[in-house]
Amino acid sequence: MTRRILVVGAGPAGTLLSCYLARRGFQVDVYERRPDPRLLDEDESRSINLGLSARGIRALEDVGLMGTLWPLTVAMRGRAIHLPGGGAPFQPYGAHDGEILHSVLRRDLITTLVDHAEAQAGVSFHFGHRLVDLDREAAAVRLVQEETGAEITVSGDAVIGADGAFSQVRTRMQHGLTADNHQEFLEWGYKELTIPAADDGSARTRLEALHVWPGEDALIVAHPNRDNSLTGTLFLPVERFDEITDPEALFEERFPDALELMPYLAKEYAEHPVGHLVSIRTSHWHYRDRVALIGDACHAVYPFYGQGMNSALEDCTVLDRCLGEHPGDLGAAFAAYQRLRKPHTDVLDELSKQNFVELRDRLRSPLHLARKKADLLLARLLPGRWVPLYTMVSHTTTPYADALARARRQDAILRRAGAGGLAALVAGVVAGAALRARRNRKGR
Amino acid sequence: MTRRILVVGAGPAGTLLSCYLARRGFQVDVYERRPDPRLLDEDESRSINLGLSARGIRALEDVGLMGTLWPLTVAMRGRAIHLPGGGAPFQPYGAHDGEILHSVLRRDLITTLVDHAEAQAGVSFHFGHRLVDLDREAAAVRLVQEETGAEITVSGDAVIGADGAFSQVRTRMQHGLTADNHQEFLEWGYKELTIPAADDGSARTRLEALHVWPGEDALIVAHPNRDNSLTGTLFLPVERFDEITDPEALFEERFPDALELMPYLAKEYAEHPVGHLVSIRTSHWHYRDRVALIGDACHAVYPFYGQGMNSALEDCTVLDRCLGEHPGDLGAAFAAYQRLRKPHTDVLDELSKQNFVELRDRLRSPLHLARKKADLLLARLLPGRWVPLYTMVSHTTTPYADALARARRQDAILRRAGAGGLAALVAGVVAGAALRARRNRKGR
Repeated sequence: MTRRILVVGAGPAGTLLSCYLARRGFQVDVYERRPDPRLLDEDESRSINLGLSARGIRALEDVGLMGTLWPLTVAMRGRAIHLPGGGAPFQPYGAHDGEILHSVLRRDLITTLVDHAEAQAGVSFHFGHRLVDLDREAAAVRLVQEETGAEITVSGDAVIGADGAFSQVRTRMQHGLTADNHQEFLEWGYKELTIPAADDGSARTRLEALHVWPGEDALIVAHPNRDNSLTGTLFLPVERFDEITDPEALFEERFPDALELMPYLAKEYAEHPVGHLVSIRTSHWHYRDRVALIGDACHAVYPFYGQGMNSALEDCTVLDRCLGEHPGDLGAAFAAYQRLRKPHTDVLDELSKQNFVELRDRLRSPLHLARKKADLLLARLLPGRWVPLYTMVSHTTTPYADALARARRQDAILRRAGAGGLAALVAGVVAGAALRARRNRKGR
Repeated sequence: MTRRILVVGAGPAGTLLSCYLARRGFQVDVYERRPDPRLLDEDESRSINLGLSARGIRALEDVGLMGTLWPLTVAMRGRAIHLPGGGAPFQPYGAHDGEILHSVLRRDLITTLVDHAEAQAGVSFHFGHRLVDLDREAAAVRLVQEETGAEITVSGDAVIGADGAFSQVRTRMQHGLTADNHQEFLEWGYKELTIPAADDGSARTRLEALHVWPGEDALIVAHPNRDNSLTGTLFLPVERFDEITDPEALFEERFPDALELMPYLAKEYAEHPVGHLVSIRTSHWHYRDRVALIGDACHAVYPFYGQGMNSALEDCTVLDRCLGEHPGDLGAAFAAYQRLRKPHTDVLDELSKQNFVELRDRLRSPLHLARKKADLLLARLLPGRWVPLYTMVSHTTTPYADALARARRQDAILRRAGAGGLAALVAGVVAGAALRARRNRKGR
């Protein structure tokens, strides 16, 4: 008899999982509160673009999707760090050319995913269905059809909650049980601001980069789009958004070069809502063999490491592997999935919090830039033996906690080498750069 | 016009607060889901006894209640630590005679508090009223009368949530807002077990002590009662409770001297429920000038430092002081209360978690016992200048975070003195004890 799994939430994680589940022979029904994203106008589904990196790419490749997706992405080869005095030094992401991130519109990703999933045998999507109740013992959900108001109840072998940071599946699954929950809102919120293409259709600034305007009291990050625009995100302490009545004056003072790139700043600042950033850790991730959680529903992180969606997609890979290792025993598969996965997403939560501090406070510091250069130099000198933490997190699928443990061992070595050693390394980097520059000139 | 405050929850904190509020001229209505504790049979309200210490005593004295309460308490002058090989060395709580804890039955405390509060002008209690809704803008609550099923709605100038760790006031006050919440269940649970008085009415073991049977996989703590019985609490990893089918065999092996004290062990083990232990941290503690939280509703801790109720009572003192400093401005008073208080209850949460580890793993260690003795010796040698952390937390009203900061400074001094210094100190303690013993013999 075919086993049936109900997935609640048709975001990237829920949709990708439905592909994996179909491949394992499950019948899959995906329920989503919102309408079909493919039927929405561009504007309605407008949302920040995402940075695809190794973990997400690996998971999407697993189900054969990257071929379709590559043309929809823009390469980000490093960070362009905009300094207060003007100038935007470029910091490559990795020691190798392959170590780059890929900007993709959420809308492009999700419609590609839904098209692909819907084409798999056994997968059905039900948009406009809002969860109103979960019977965790019966693996049954009660849903309201948003258009008609009609209620339906469906049951399966298991329910997967892929319904985001404020997951109703999680709340109802854990109700009355001894569940751990950690929910923290960052004191900073965000607002999206556009850097449109120039009138001639070209990009107003270097396109193939993640742009960062660091700052201790305000911070901007911008991702490139295929139409030569960039989507900027302004981060500020939440209470500041209302206090600022003249955003152009703020930008004039703090980010003059960003002001030049954002002709719609005043209008967008007034019209766009303030978004909040939440971190969620929880346990348990599953209830026996009946209910399990993936993605933001079990681990939501601040966006500053660019790993929120990538880790959600990687969850699907891990859960799929556990299903393969425990055929016919969903309870054992769900337990193994939490045991294998949660230690790593807990570490990602820490890293994402730390990276906020890095973006905000340390990115401008010459010492920090020197350290980054030294790290990359060591990675070039000791290929495969010295890997910076950022590289492991973003450009490999080394589990997060293993990456952190290895980075700590490397840090200890650097510390033992001492500040003198670091200075020598930096000098080496500079000398090396001069040498390469001379060679390049000679080569011409 | 008299201002009216609605207090939800008639536990120790809600009831004490009503006394403070009455003194400041508020009209106070206290709503409690359960029936009047004074009308319950002894058995129905049976619950663990509590350890009153300096903070709780100070708060109860503030409203003139300790005179009535003292006769209902039993002094605990230190810990009796039951070792596996037999014997139960006694560890005094402090360097001075006044540094003791006082065991009191929850029932005795709460009935005394309710009697006292009800006698204040302007305070009314409404038992058997369950909260079903809160309108945070209007400071209004909707309640169901448990007996009749009738619904009533009442409003005031503010609502105080004193309704415990799973506070409905908190949930409804924070609904849809960017609230931080940390809820953690300990992997260990508990079960209450009685050490009855002997047949001749005397106590079966030293009465004026907190008894501890430490252990890494099982742990017992017992508080004395006025009738010469003690109430024991068995702590175990939650899943172990069901696995153990013969508790007497476990005790025979692990706690033989406790088995002798507990003639009803098998029956009580089978009949008493497993309790769970939860830690809660949250923010915000208030919503403008309309709603505020006290006690477990805003900071629930594990019971291992004996500070849960004491800190809840101390909340009332702090909130009362803030009301005094901001007359006529509840919003400013609530904000000041959270600002002053939360850093300290956050530290208490940490300390309570650490003390679980101490009770479980370290209490039997000779090094730990030596360190405790050294600490007490230093406290005697340097009165007022060297105060052990436990003493500051339990026997003073030094705010928790200040106590921890001072203890860390003291620890740093001890560490600098080094292991050799510690050994010398211990030798000094032993020599001192020998000297005193000789003096005592001479004195006879």
